[in-house]
Amino acid sequence: MPPTTGLFSASLCRRLFNQSHFIRHRRRLHSEIEYPLNHPIYTIWASNTSLGKTLVSAGLSMSFLSSSAQLARKRFLYLKPIQTGFPDDSDSRFVYRKFSEFFAFKPLPFSVYASNCVFKASIPAANQVLGNGIPGCSARNEDFGVEVAKKGGSVGGGLENVLWYEERKLQGSESNETELFPVSEVVCKTMYGWNEAVSPHLAAEREEAIVMDSEVLDMLKRCLGNGVVGTSCGTEEEIMCVIETAGGVASPGPSGSLQCDLYRRPFRLPAILVGDGRLGGISGTISAYESLKLRGYDVAAVIFEDNGLMNEVPLSSYFRNRVPVLVLPSIPKDISDDLISWFDKSQTVFTSLKEIMLSAFLERTQRLLDMPKKACDVFWWPFTQHKLVPEEKVTVIDSRCGENFAVHKSFDWISQQFDACASWWTQGPDATLQIELARDMGYTAARYGHVMFPENVYEPALELAELLLEGWASRVYFSDNGSTAVEIALKMAFRKFLSDSKVLLDLVNADMNGRSMDLKVLALRGSYHGDTLGAMEAQAPSPYTGFLQQPWYRGRGLFLDPPTVSMYDGTWEVRLPEKMQFEKSGDGCLSFSSRDEIFEMSRDSSGLADLYTSFILQELMLLSDSNGLSHIGALIIEPGKNAFGAGGMEMIDPLYQHVLVKECKRRKIPVIFDEVFTGFWRLGRESAAEMLHCQPDIACYAKLMTGGIIPLAATLASDAVFEAFTGDSKLKALLHGHSYSAHAMGCAAAAKSVKWFKDCKTNINLMSESRLLQELWDAELVAQISILPAVHRVVALGTLCAIELLAEGSNAGYASTYASALLKKLREDGIYMRPLGNVIYLMCGPCTSPDTCRSLLEKVHARIHEFGQQEDKSVLPLHREY
Amino acid sequence: MPPTTGLFSASLCRRLFNQSHFIRHRRRLHSEIEYPLNHPIYTIWASNTSLGKTLVSAGLSMSFLSSSAQLARKRFLYLKPIQTGFPDDSDSRFVYRKFSEFFAFKPLPFSVYASNCVFKASIPAANQVLGNGIPGCSARNEDFGVEVAKKGGSVGGGLENVLWYEERKLQGSESNETELFPVSEVVCKTMYGWNEAVSPHLAAEREEAIVMDSEVLDMLKRCLGNGVVGTSCGTEEEIMCVIETAGGVASPGPSGSLQCDLYRRPFRLPAILVGDGRLGGISGTISAYESLKLRGYDVAAVIFEDNGLMNEVPLSSYFRNRVPVLVLPSIPKDISDDLISWFDKSQTVFTSLKEIMLSAFLERTQRLLDMPKKACDVFWWPFTQHKLVPEEKVTVIDSRCGENFAVHKSFDWISQQFDACASWWTQGPDATLQIELARDMGYTAARYGHVMFPENVYEPALELAELLLEGWASRVYFSDNGSTAVEIALKMAFRKFLSDSKVLLDLVNADMNGRSMDLKVLALRGSYHGDTLGAMEAQAPSPYTGFLQQPWYRGRGLFLDPPTVSMYDGTWEVRLPEKMQFEKSGDGCLSFSSRDEIFEMSRDSSGLADLYTSFILQELMLLSDSNGLSHIGALIIEPGKNAFGAGGMEMIDPLYQHVLVKECKRRKIPVIFDEVFTGFWRLGRESAAEMLHCQPDIACYAKLMTGGIIPLAATLASDAVFEAFTGDSKLKALLHGHSYSAHAMGCAAAAKSVKWFKDCKTNINLMSESRLLQELWDAELVAQISILPAVHRVVALGTLCAIELLAEGSNAGYASTYASALLKKLREDGIYMRPLGNVIYLMCGPCTSPDTCRSLLEKVHARIHEFGQQEDKSVLPLHREY
Repeated sequence: MPPTTGLFSASLCRRLFNQSHFIRHRRRLHSEIEYPLNHPIYTIWASNTSLGKTLVSAGLSMSFLSSSAQLARKRFLYLKPIQTGFPDDSDSRFVYRKFSEFFAFKPLPFSVYASNCVFKASIPAANQVLGNGIPGCSARNEDFGVEVAKKGGSVGGGLENVLWYEERKLQGSESNETELFPVSEVVCKTMYGWNEAVSPHLAAEREEAIVMDSEVLDMLKRCLGNGVVGTSCGTEEEIMCVIETAGGVASPGPSGSLQCDLYRRPFRLPAILVGDGRLGGISGTISAYESLKLRGYDVAAVIFEDNGLMNEVPLSSYFRNRVPVLVLPSIPKDISDDLISWFDKSQTVFTSLKEIMLSAFLERTQRLLDMPKKACDVFWWPFTQHKLVPEEKVTVIDSRCGENFAVHKSFDWISQQFDACASWWTQGPDATLQIELARDMGYTAARYGHVMFPENVYEPALELAELLLEGWASRVYFSDNGSTAVEIALKMAFRKFLSDSKVLLDLVNADMNGRSMDLKVLALRGSYHGDTLGAMEAQAPSPYTGFLQQPWYRGRGLFLDPPTVSMYDGTWEVRLPEKMQFEKSGDGCLSFSSRDEIFEMSRDSSGLADLYTSFILQELMLLSDSNGLSHIGALIIEPGKNAFGAGGMEMIDPLYQHVLVKECKRRKIPVIFDEVFTGFWRLGRESAAEMLHCQPDIACYAKLMTGGIIPLAATLASDAVFEAFTGDSKLKALLHGHSYSAHAMGCAAAAKSVKWFKDCKTNINLMSESRLLQELWDAELVAQISILPAVHRVVALGTLCAIELLAEGSNAGYASTYASALLKKLREDGIYMRPLGNVIYLMCGPCTSPDTCRSLLEKVHARIHEFGQQEDKSVLPLHREY
Repeated sequence: MPPTTGLFSASLCRRLFNQSHFIRHRRRLHSEIEYPLNHPIYTIWASNTSLGKTLVSAGLSMSFLSSSAQLARKRFLYLKPIQTGFPDDSDSRFVYRKFSEFFAFKPLPFSVYASNCVFKASIPAANQVLGNGIPGCSARNEDFGVEVAKKGGSVGGGLENVLWYEERKLQGSESNETELFPVSEVVCKTMYGWNEAVSPHLAAEREEAIVMDSEVLDMLKRCLGNGVVGTSCGTEEEIMCVIETAGGVASPGPSGSLQCDLYRRPFRLPAILVGDGRLGGISGTISAYESLKLRGYDVAAVIFEDNGLMNEVPLSSYFRNRVPVLVLPSIPKDISDDLISWFDKSQTVFTSLKEIMLSAFLERTQRLLDMPKKACDVFWWPFTQHKLVPEEKVTVIDSRCGENFAVHKSFDWISQQFDACASWWTQGPDATLQIELARDMGYTAARYGHVMFPENVYEPALELAELLLEGWASRVYFSDNGSTAVEIALKMAFRKFLSDSKVLLDLVNADMNGRSMDLKVLALRGSYHGDTLGAMEAQAPSPYTGFLQQPWYRGRGLFLDPPTVSMYDGTWEVRLPEKMQFEKSGDGCLSFSSRDEIFEMSRDSSGLADLYTSFILQELMLLSDSNGLSHIGALIIEPGKNAFGAGGMEMIDPLYQHVLVKECKRRKIPVIFDEVFTGFWRLGRESAAEMLHCQPDIACYAKLMTGGIIPLAATLASDAVFEAFTGDSKLKALLHGHSYSAHAMGCAAAAKSVKWFKDCKTNINLMSESRLLQELWDAELVAQISILPAVHRVVALGTLCAIELLAEGSNAGYASTYASALLKKLREDGIYMRPLGNVIYLMCGPCTSPDTCRSLLEKVHARIHEFGQQEDKSVLPLHREY
């Protein structure tokens, strides 16, 4: 079997690693492709070193190639990203050679091109390859007809390009000379090699050749992409790819990250776990399995070498038969054994394993394909007009990793999208915090599940309460979501208000129904505090409050129009509401040289402060004049912002809110800060209330409090508020509660996240002294966006950057689908955004890097620019776009 | 050093294993004691076999005994519950001997009694001991002055009593002949031995000597209790106890249960993990740690043998320095080495480990002691009058395992209490499901965290929706708790009602405010549907709805008085409300021969059905007469029950609810079943609606849906209801939502639990054909309780057994503290109950065994009997009892 040199050159050109080529090719296909889903890709893990991962990979190559469907061309791709002990040890060479040897022992009817290549290595490892070749190869060249191509070259960071390539054609028993192309292929690749036979992190450190996780993942992505790109030649083709890890599941990779964490981002490829059949192996196998599960991996099968201990029995019992457990014949211990007869004996097991892998793959892809239709059939999505969401607009989310979704595309790719709506403003964790939270959730569920809260105490609830009470508040009332937290806050405020006024309290006590008294809440027009009826009553009439939405809504508030803050055409402005403009000379727009100037304390003594005060007093007077039965029992505001103003995501002038709070406090009207949205660094400070330079009596938190993984809400109160509920009778207590009050998992997640975000060691965005996040949104880019013709205004603050598009008529407002076409493009760019009518926004986590934010902004800038240049916007499909 | 025979006999008597003695002694102390907390008890785990657990135990014994505080008497207790390879291998003998040898090498100033004993062994192992003694002992007798006591005797199940005992006095270097008692002790115990050196499950099986988990735990409890009981002699004393496991953390115990699961129930003792310093050891150590965390264990330190690979660096980085990592000198590989010089060299490490263990122990106990006060200072418990909950009434919950809490008692015990209030009716999982859920929660948090729901789909949400829609419903709307689920249901029902009546819809559309129309809900007096304002409006006026509780409450319902069902003095009765009694001859009490007779379909055609119908029609007529603007827009009922009736936990006559639904359906009034409490087997059927033989248009679920570990709610709707919200405009959609809609962890927990409870393989209470739980509450005992003089009525159905105590005046009703003294006694019996005024109840999970329920009922019977016999109840402290 001599090497077929002509073909070899062609295939070498085609297949040799060429970074720029792959990148260009991929870009043309899709800019954010992560990995293909048109063929199975599995990661081979093991519960310890030396349990036979490579034997399993080699066995799979044999059984995959020899599967019965012979019409299709077959391609088996073996990847070894991290190889230590190289070149003495080379698992890709082992797979390549064992496949070839086995082919010689049991030829297949068709020919196979087998190849092995190595991309990069540390200098000691590369020197050895370039000096002596890969051990065993030169000696075996003639036996196996191997051609060798070598080329060195430093790539920096202590690594060299080692473009080692070896290939041979294995002549099929029924193939003949007329075949023009190799029918099938076994392609083996080593990505990185280090010389010392120790853990990769140690080898990388000792050989001064450290590779960052992102580099490993980039190359892996390219190798995987290549698995598809290189073969789109129209022929029917079956592909299987396995990626073999190094050592055990939690062995560190070259950067020191655990491999189970490294490959989690963002691949989360399905796993095969090579277990341990020895004494103690049950434990090791189960623990390794649990480490994989704790990182969100799906394990398709467990396989291990028989040691006569029947470890499969307890393992199957542990798995409740949901994960198949396969047992391989005992491996010959004689190192001179070439293992060919062992492979032969093991073929039935490998064939079963291959079948399991193929059917799990098919099941998964079929399910992913079916999910949109099923979702449209069974879900009733909140805030969604189902008629406007046809099946093809549904996004299938396969997983999330930190700030990113992995979404399934109908054309068989799993692709990454930045969750720029922060999944309804809940998200914050980076990938590291997410995995820490996952372990904590497992621990907390095992330790507590959920336990009764009233009259009891347990660690997570106490720890969280202590954290939340580091500021002004002295009591924590737990509930499940922002809406319930607000209802509780209102109940607290009203009681406090009545307690403070003996006259009113006597009135109520005289008429226990109290129905003649009308307690109102003071709130800002355009504010939003939740969807349960009590919270809705604190909201001015809006599309949400119509009779057909909530027939019981009355709107029990006095609603004020606040002045707002935004950047218009590169300048930060405070814009006054209409009524105030009448008083103020000019057009009611006040310009500021910077955003931060707007937050300055000194504005307290400005003329604008007086104007705000007089307007507020005027409104309050109007109410108290109307009749003697109406009273303002509470003020509720969202510090710094209004969620669903006419334009959505509006920022309120902090001076106005400051004045409002001051006037209410003067009148003993309890003040509620609704920090459900704004709390926990959302607006750049742990509590947005810090921007107002004043403290509330009551405050509500939810959403990001738990790091965004689980619902939990807290209503904080001052001691004076709490005292309004103490007495001798239970009937005086606050008789409100939810079953999962202070549930342990929510409290544990919150305690962890609250600490994580405010610790400089874990949150690199934190500016150590100032209790502020660094600026995440590039000021220059924000200004550039604000001057785009299609843009009305921009607000960038903390983790939020909101952009109101210039729109008129039905294109404006909540029900508008004006932004749909724009957002569709941005999803293609890998950014998952959702509109609020004609307002779009980017939201990141407190730990998201400014680089990531810049890249998001750049894409948004480009797309809005493009959007603005479309000649006739009216022809855009405004409706039925997701 | 000759054996001191006289003392030896005394100590033998005192310390030899004597089951009945310990049990009696413990009973006298406290009936439900689990383990003492007045000294540290640690479990020694390892990430694999043969990593040196026993060396660590022995090293600890040495450093504990030689700690500087020499005034106190010291006692080191070493327990080896499971020993295989016995008697050739005996870890307790190893610790005993190495301690003695080390003492000889480096004597302490005071004398020490060292002992080793073995309790039970399989027949092959026992025969070997009884035939030849423990290997090495006879040969070494003279060297070590060992006395040996042996006594065999079968204890059944393939086990024999092997009362092997060896002891010696180690003379202190500064001690003299006048000391009367041994100053300190090292006590080593092996609980069970098997002969083969394989995994315990295999040895137990092969030697036909299987021990159930409960037996192992019972003996362990006794051994631990003995650690305290045997030493309460007034002397100041320092105790440390270590329990050494067998093999790796997840190695099976003798019954096949994994040891990490076995010891979890209910001990959850703090752990020391012996890690692996070899190649691959980082991974194994981390995975083992994660398996322990996934079962709720706290790991105080990781320790391993140095192999020159610096495994401590990546391990410390993984632990973020929160878990100390200690490294032991390399262990001599020469098997003839007696290790004494290694122990000597390792003493500084063992001393650090001991210090870590002591300080972690002190920190934990101090925190447990501080928690009640802190809780009283920072929490605002729901439904709680804080003035009635002084610090000493606060329960510290250290953990839960299945249906049981582990609570901290101020007198330094961790004690088990059955969670008979099911933590506000949320709980269901047994210990096995809890651990499965914990792993699933870790997996789901790692895979998804939480992701955006609207317009998206992901597996856990889809899987749960498909499960929930197996019945009549066709759409699922997710929210966070029962209260929000009800608000959503009401919004759905009202829209459906208006859509069905073109006249009304036109009226609303003409007057978009629609404020002239008054939509009411039809509900039952005494019903409860949640604490948010919308849900409260569907509730008749009650202590919860007063102006001081919720000034905005109006009560927008037409509230009917339903007939109720209970057992009175041994007989099941339906009792009619007052108004109906007038119509019906007799006293309005209808007796039934059995409870099940009340559920029979045939009652549909009874005269009572006609009476119900006419009463319902009459009430509806009254409303429609009053004015043309009021309409009933929805019916809401809890199938089978009313939560907070005057007496609490009342059962409604299912016939009445059936008739009510029929009449509403006839009038196109949408029917809502509030199954928040009654769903998922709470009342013995998956859906309590099955008892009513009819289907709703809308249904609400929460609480037990997730297995009780995490909040999630679902509102189910028929397709006709869903259609009332579809149209071309988003404004027609149901504009209600919560941030964590369909959060992945909640959906995953629910999908798991829903399947678990309805699967005969996992829920042994399920009667295979009938979709019913078997009777959990012994009918005879229930009847006996109902005839107690102190009892007014009893309802036992499904997982609930409610008992209304006979009470009058202020002793009755919600604010009553009448039952407090009774419940205090029951907590001492290990049952954690909470009263609803003068109603008390037991609630178990769908998988709780009838044996457990019987034992609960027996204790309740005894305590109520006692309670009823107190001569003058008025002298009971009615107030300020928790």
